[in-house]
Amino acid sequence: MRAVDIIEKTRNHEELSEAELRFFLSGYLEQTIPDYQMSAWLMAVYFQGLSKTNLMHLVQIMVDSGDRLDLSSLPGIKVDKHSTGGVGDKTSLVVGPLVAACGVTIAKMSGRGLGHTGGTIDKLESIPGYQSEVTSEAFLSILRQHQVAIVGQSPNLVPLDKDLYGLRDVTATVPSIPLIAASIMSKKLASGADKIVLDVKVGNGSFMDDVDQARVLAQTMVDIGHSFGKTTIAVLTDMSQPLGQAVGNQLEVQEAIDTLQGRGPRDFTELCTQAAIHLLEAAGVDHPEQAIQEAISSGRAYQKFVDFIQAQGGSISAFEKLPSAPVIYPVTSDTAGVVTAFKTKDVGHAAMLLGAGRATKQATIDPLVGIKVKVSIGDAVKPGDVLFEVYAQEQRDDVTQILKESIMLGDNATPPQLIIDVIR
Amino acid sequence: MRAVDIIEKTRNHEELSEAELRFFLSGYLEQTIPDYQMSAWLMAVYFQGLSKTNLMHLVQIMVDSGDRLDLSSLPGIKVDKHSTGGVGDKTSLVVGPLVAACGVTIAKMSGRGLGHTGGTIDKLESIPGYQSEVTSEAFLSILRQHQVAIVGQSPNLVPLDKDLYGLRDVTATVPSIPLIAASIMSKKLASGADKIVLDVKVGNGSFMDDVDQARVLAQTMVDIGHSFGKTTIAVLTDMSQPLGQAVGNQLEVQEAIDTLQGRGPRDFTELCTQAAIHLLEAAGVDHPEQAIQEAISSGRAYQKFVDFIQAQGGSISAFEKLPSAPVIYPVTSDTAGVVTAFKTKDVGHAAMLLGAGRATKQATIDPLVGIKVKVSIGDAVKPGDVLFEVYAQEQRDDVTQILKESIMLGDNATPPQLIIDVIR
Repeated sequence: MRAVDIIEKTRNHEELSEAELRFFLSGYLEQTIPDYQMSAWLMAVYFQGLSKTNLMHLVQIMVDSGDRLDLSSLPGIKVDKHSTGGVGDKTSLVVGPLVAACGVTIAKMSGRGLGHTGGTIDKLESIPGYQSEVTSEAFLSILRQHQVAIVGQSPNLVPLDKDLYGLRDVTATVPSIPLIAASIMSKKLASGADKIVLDVKVGNGSFMDDVDQARVLAQTMVDIGHSFGKTTIAVLTDMSQPLGQAVGNQLEVQEAIDTLQGRGPRDFTELCTQAAIHLLEAAGVDHPEQAIQEAISSGRAYQKFVDFIQAQGGSISAFEKLPSAPVIYPVTSDTAGVVTAFKTKDVGHAAMLLGAGRATKQATIDPLVGIKVKVSIGDAVKPGDVLFEVYAQEQRDDVTQILKESIMLGDNATPPQLIIDVIR
Repeated sequence: MRAVDIIEKTRNHEELSEAELRFFLSGYLEQTIPDYQMSAWLMAVYFQGLSKTNLMHLVQIMVDSGDRLDLSSLPGIKVDKHSTGGVGDKTSLVVGPLVAACGVTIAKMSGRGLGHTGGTIDKLESIPGYQSEVTSEAFLSILRQHQVAIVGQSPNLVPLDKDLYGLRDVTATVPSIPLIAASIMSKKLASGADKIVLDVKVGNGSFMDDVDQARVLAQTMVDIGHSFGKTTIAVLTDMSQPLGQAVGNQLEVQEAIDTLQGRGPRDFTELCTQAAIHLLEAAGVDHPEQAIQEAISSGRAYQKFVDFIQAQGGSISAFEKLPSAPVIYPVTSDTAGVVTAFKTKDVGHAAMLLGAGRATKQATIDPLVGIKVKVSIGDAVKPGDVLFEVYAQEQRDDVTQILKESIMLGDNATPPQLIIDVIR
């Protein structure tokens, strides 16, 4: 078996045997297949895709490359959710405790942010004392007690994905639907949940601006889930404007708390509710919408949040006592009009420039800074109206400029539909 | 400037600036751009091609990567020829002395063979004493005296091509028209001739079986030549059966000698004559066909061969005294019919198995062994007729089997047209 023949077959859109794929991918992990052959193969996959059968082999080999989390010792059905990421997406912080408060165990491994998107772990780390790195035993123990835990990804969970992603990042082979789908789903499958809900973001704040492409990605991931015997539901949701109001770590945690207490922004609350409904339905809970309303209004959802954070070393009371950012100032509109569109990535980028995100993997995060988005698509504004509130270490004219230019004003606009489609 | 952005642009079929290409390619040569980024780029070029402008940049950067041969101290117009290679292709051995005998200087750097194709240098090395490695000074001196020399490629001629070819070979990115064209033409341009004739082989004995693809390659190379101010002519020629009769090093040299003496196979003689006509026309020689006939019939063409070989250390009289291969045996037809087609690569492969070619770059060549092809497409054969004569160290049943299966018999067939097209 020769690596070059495997690359050639993929380049010609020919089927590979599972043995060929395993030889090539395992060889890469073991460093007998060099980077330069893998990157040529990745570019061939970018152009030619993979057959459904080969995609399932790829996912299996990726799952097999490292440890799997065994959740079977926990009672009941275990669920997991994943978002493809966007600006202001703090959904996991709400959906986790919400689902747990309805009696369903949700075991979540999350990542850190890069570029215009924030990461769930970064957000949680703005809570004093919170620990993202816990042992598998501690993770299971917290889940057994509180039905929810959100931890960083175990370093040996799908190590092949880590290696491949690092290479894709520097060889312009990231935006390939089979590679994206395999990366996400291999980690979900290795994380051991029985039911998976995927939030696939569509729009200029996500990495997929094209709804047809996003639908193909969603369908591909659902197919993978089904092929591995897992109930998998993908929800296509709008990311053509920031989700909720808050962008930035401490601000987003506060907005998550508000939402768990029934005082969150309308769009974000709706999204969390829909994701929770799908998770609860998949877990066989009757009347999930009613259960969710009751969990919020009773305070149990918020209490779950307090409890699991505490179990992971964090203190909500210490969080409540944190200072605000040193400087808070408004960005106002110069003209009148209706908000027709956002340059959503630019809002994320502005937050990153303030220190809320990472330009490089090595950068550190400032938990205090961020942006509150005060208008939505369809809102009428007049000169002087506040478009954004900036939470910063100091006044930043570059950020103000980016934010002013991030909002398009026109004659009229219809607010986008938040839930675009559900694929099962 | 980031390598990943350059890969992404090429992947998206966007134009690169010359500075970007130079950064990327020179960086690769200087090992600041790693193999894995270059191989991803090469695969992107395989799928997306390069714009004409970027292709010219690529060729320029390749030429600039090493030494150039300066032929300006030699009088008159200097010509060069190149064949894309096939089975039994000993054209350079004839065309070189033939053109020189007509008064035109032809400075040729050649390569070695790999797989089913032989290399001009390997063939010449079957002549006792012949030296392919000569200094630039000696090369120029031989050219000044004899108007022809055929030497191995200088190690510092287009070193970037050597590096890129090595990587393409192991990443399934060899069959890309712009990359093939740039590889060939950069070496021709660095070799310093004023006029270039390219023999682009088409058919199952060459690396291009599709006439339309071969035409695109030919046009691409002609465009490159013109863009660099060189008269460039490409001749598309048939390689759907072995060229001439002889396949194997000593046998091919003998066939070249026969052809220079006016006793060569009809197809091979015609091909050499046509190539020489184009070269002489390009050099401004009047009545080139007449000059060629006269050079052969007078014995001057053969004498040029003897002279330049001698100038490079070789002895034709010693060559004439070499032994034949130890075993010479016929491969005969089992049935009757008309030869409709050859599996031409298999004939080359059979010669390689005998020892006439290299399975790997490290393999050594046996100059004595080879195959004589005794029939052509369109010939009628009956059972017992000789199809091939095998020159071997020992009887080889595997070779016999391959050769028997390499000829298709049918009801009737028209001999293929040898010269398919001329592109200028």
